[in-house]
Amino acid sequence: MPTYKLTYFPVKALAEPIRFVLSYMGQEFEDYRFEREQWPSIKPSMPFGKVPVLEIDGVKLHQSTALTRYLGKKAGLGGKNDWEDLQIDIAVETLHDFRAAVGNYFYDADETSKEKKKEPLMSETVPYYLKKFDELVKENGGYLANGALSWGDLYFVAVSDYLSGMLEFDICEKYSNLKALKDKVLEIPKIKEWIKKRPETAF
Amino acid sequence: MPTYKLTYFPVKALAEPIRFVLSYMGQEFEDYRFEREQWPSIKPSMPFGKVPVLEIDGVKLHQSTALTRYLGKKAGLGGKNDWEDLQIDIAVETLHDFRAAVGNYFYDADETSKEKKKEPLMSETVPYYLKKFDELVKENGGYLANGALSWGDLYFVAVSDYLSGMLEFDICEKYSNLKALKDKVLEIPKIKEWIKKRPETAF
Repeated sequence: MPTYKLTYFPVKALAEPIRFVLSYMGQEFEDYRFEREQWPSIKPSMPFGKVPVLEIDGVKLHQSTALTRYLGKKAGLGGKNDWEDLQIDIAVETLHDFRAAVGNYFYDADETSKEKKKEPLMSETVPYYLKKFDELVKENGGYLANGALSWGDLYFVAVSDYLSGMLEFDICEKYSNLKALKDKVLEIPKIKEWIKKRPETAF
Repeated sequence: MPTYKLTYFPVKALAEPIRFVLSYMGQEFEDYRFEREQWPSIKPSMPFGKVPVLEIDGVKLHQSTALTRYLGKKAGLGGKNDWEDLQIDIAVETLHDFRAAVGNYFYDADETSKEKKKEPLMSETVPYYLKKFDELVKENGGYLANGALSWGDLYFVAVSDYLSGMLEFDICEKYSNLKALKDKVLEIPKIKEWIKKRPETAF
């Protein structure tokens, strides 16, 4: 059995999809969370200086989406064929576009520029994406793609707290299909077990 | 035979990887390029309001990476197994991190904030990524992953002009392994043929 060690800041954010999939698989893993002040000493040993990093049998692998896709396929959460994989990939990449738009506001170090971005983000971009995602889930029988649970759904639900945290409101609350998807994923026994035992963090 | 229609601005940028892979496959496609002033009338008919969009037999599909991966697999440019696919995905996702960092500067509408980003981008971020990518290609026998040509290499070479355009210098020039990879991809007969016939554009 391979060993898994996940290294990240003490938050959910981009590591949580990997934690969700490993938990879904029933796979034990070391959930190493370092403090912010440790980051400068850890950063140089990480490929391309970023985390999350998952070590599989000591091999350091980075990139949250690539890892969730890889593990998701092992967990039986991939598409049934290349076309279905494409639909999952499209949904997740679009989620990243949305996250990038939110992050572009949230992480703006310049207060004036940040303030300027807030109104169009909140009144246009955010409702646009959430409505479209809600429709997508409705069209796909309650999932992001192919009418079936995939690693894309786990990705979405796992990062939804991060998105809600940056936006300061629950992104699923007003969108019944997104809300139902989130509830459904959180009710999966292995995910439920993970949620119960994971450390409490804001994001 | 399915029909392919690609819709994008009259530039290379994020559509070029799709054009590269379709050309590599020897696949005919309609390369529809609209003018900037047409965009407001086209945008509402695009899934999630973005391009490039590839229509396969009339089905509108978006997301450049998802599409390049899908077509790349059909073209025999995927990994030999899930592990190899993971390595390609990691490289391409990291390329997007790099592109996001460059775009965060280039597309900043606030001149003061943009100017502030320039120095750290040019003196730290850009050389950091380019050196790492150059090492990655060296370690992988002249390719981004697995010691073999993949859709990831086509993606990289296809967007390199876009990155160079935003940065106002040739990103491969000082990095011998990246330069060699670029030259090698551009020498593939079907790619060479595409380059020869494609419209001249700055990005």
